[in-house]
Amino acid sequence: MSTHHLSTGSTAPPLTPGKLRFYSMRFCPYAQRIHLVLDIKNIPYEVVYINLTHKPEWLLEKNSLGKVPCIELENGETLYESLVIADYLDEAYPQRPLYPKNPLQKAKDRLLIERFGSVITSMYKLYRSIAIERDAFEEALTGLEIYDRELAKRGTPFFGGSKPGMLDLMIWPWCERADVIRILSGDQYIIPRDRFLRLLEWRSAMKEDPSIKKSYLEPEIHTKYIKSRLAGSPQYDMLIEA
Amino acid sequence: MSTHHLSTGSTAPPLTPGKLRFYSMRFCPYAQRIHLVLDIKNIPYEVVYINLTHKPEWLLEKNSLGKVPCIELENGETLYESLVIADYLDEAYPQRPLYPKNPLQKAKDRLLIERFGSVITSMYKLYRSIAIERDAFEEALTGLEIYDRELAKRGTPFFGGSKPGMLDLMIWPWCERADVIRILSGDQYIIPRDRFLRLLEWRSAMKEDPSIKKSYLEPEIHTKYIKSRLAGSPQYDMLIEA
Repeated sequence: MSTHHLSTGSTAPPLTPGKLRFYSMRFCPYAQRIHLVLDIKNIPYEVVYINLTHKPEWLLEKNSLGKVPCIELENGETLYESLVIADYLDEAYPQRPLYPKNPLQKAKDRLLIERFGSVITSMYKLYRSIAIERDAFEEALTGLEIYDRELAKRGTPFFGGSKPGMLDLMIWPWCERADVIRILSGDQYIIPRDRFLRLLEWRSAMKEDPSIKKSYLEPEIHTKYIKSRLAGSPQYDMLIEA
Repeated sequence: MSTHHLSTGSTAPPLTPGKLRFYSMRFCPYAQRIHLVLDIKNIPYEVVYINLTHKPEWLLEKNSLGKVPCIELENGETLYESLVIADYLDEAYPQRPLYPKNPLQKAKDRLLIERFGSVITSMYKLYRSIAIERDAFEEALTGLEIYDRELAKRGTPFFGGSKPGMLDLMIWPWCERADVIRILSGDQYIIPRDRFLRLLEWRSAMKEDPSIKKSYLEPEIHTKYIKSRLAGSPQYDMLIEA
């Protein structure tokens, strides 16, 4: 599967019958959420990568907001917003259900997915700034502690139990990228092992899951991409040009 | 049911067996979302109103973020975030399901609920500022047009079909308050009838629903509350003091 990102002037690739079309960007963590759900549920799909700096004109026809992740069904209908797509896929493809059956447990997982938003915000602050880095780092760690405690409370290797569930998948893309800040800014940004024993164990276990391996990239690769973005010219096709 | 809002120094009212406890604030549109779902599904509940300026100490024990809306179950577990609670109630109390059965239609409704966030943002801008009002008003109208067109497309009186569904209920609290800006700032902020034929018809029909009437307040009342909030001392107990 090519990682070449289509841009302005390209033509929309025709849909393949029987396959879900997924518009993605190789380094977008929100899009990775959808890769993870598609891969873990073994849903047949084909990905079309999008150059988000120079978007193809046809993308706006499919989805007026021109955002990724976006999925297109065989009837031409599209859906966007990572959490809406993830929930849709879980309901439309009942194999390997990703939420707890109990509505209260499911709601609690959805709350923890929502709450992870503050960790995401702190991470973006860390990428962008130098001055307030220590504060943002502490903010991110405080946010993450909730998840470490939650794993301890559940007493299972994954939030989903013995296997990764929706909560595991929805927070994973940012956990995969957690070491970027250390690589960008130095060893004072190492995640302290003693404060995050379970979460670090969880991260090791997640990395071993064959479905998660499909979209996995090493922190060094993420760093290289983020550097290119911070420099103003995101290298979407970095992986095929390398 | 009293509308007195409990504040710092109060004691937590004991739970009533067989009733869901709902922490609310009488004028909070997010909390109203939950009133609407509880009322339309006829779920037995008791409401405890919270003074958000001087929060009761015991609220933080129940919910570390001290936010409303928040529900408390008989086992003492709590849930917050209006959309998470609304979805939970819809799943835990299967009577009168509020989403379409078809996962794609459900996902599309959830997208429209998410997207309504931009209308909400414009409305708050309108309350707070004077200078940029015309822009924010146009912004809010542009956001609302999506919903008018959607109603036309669906060809039904409600987004949910012949009866209000989750999408109707989740956007309702702000539509109930839409005339506040006209009352606050004058007739240049009347919603243009010709641009919003269906949405205004929908609003009239919504107001007639007996479940929606339970939490309904006239725009003049909302305006009075919002003025008190803008002046720095929200009159939570306005309705019982009047």
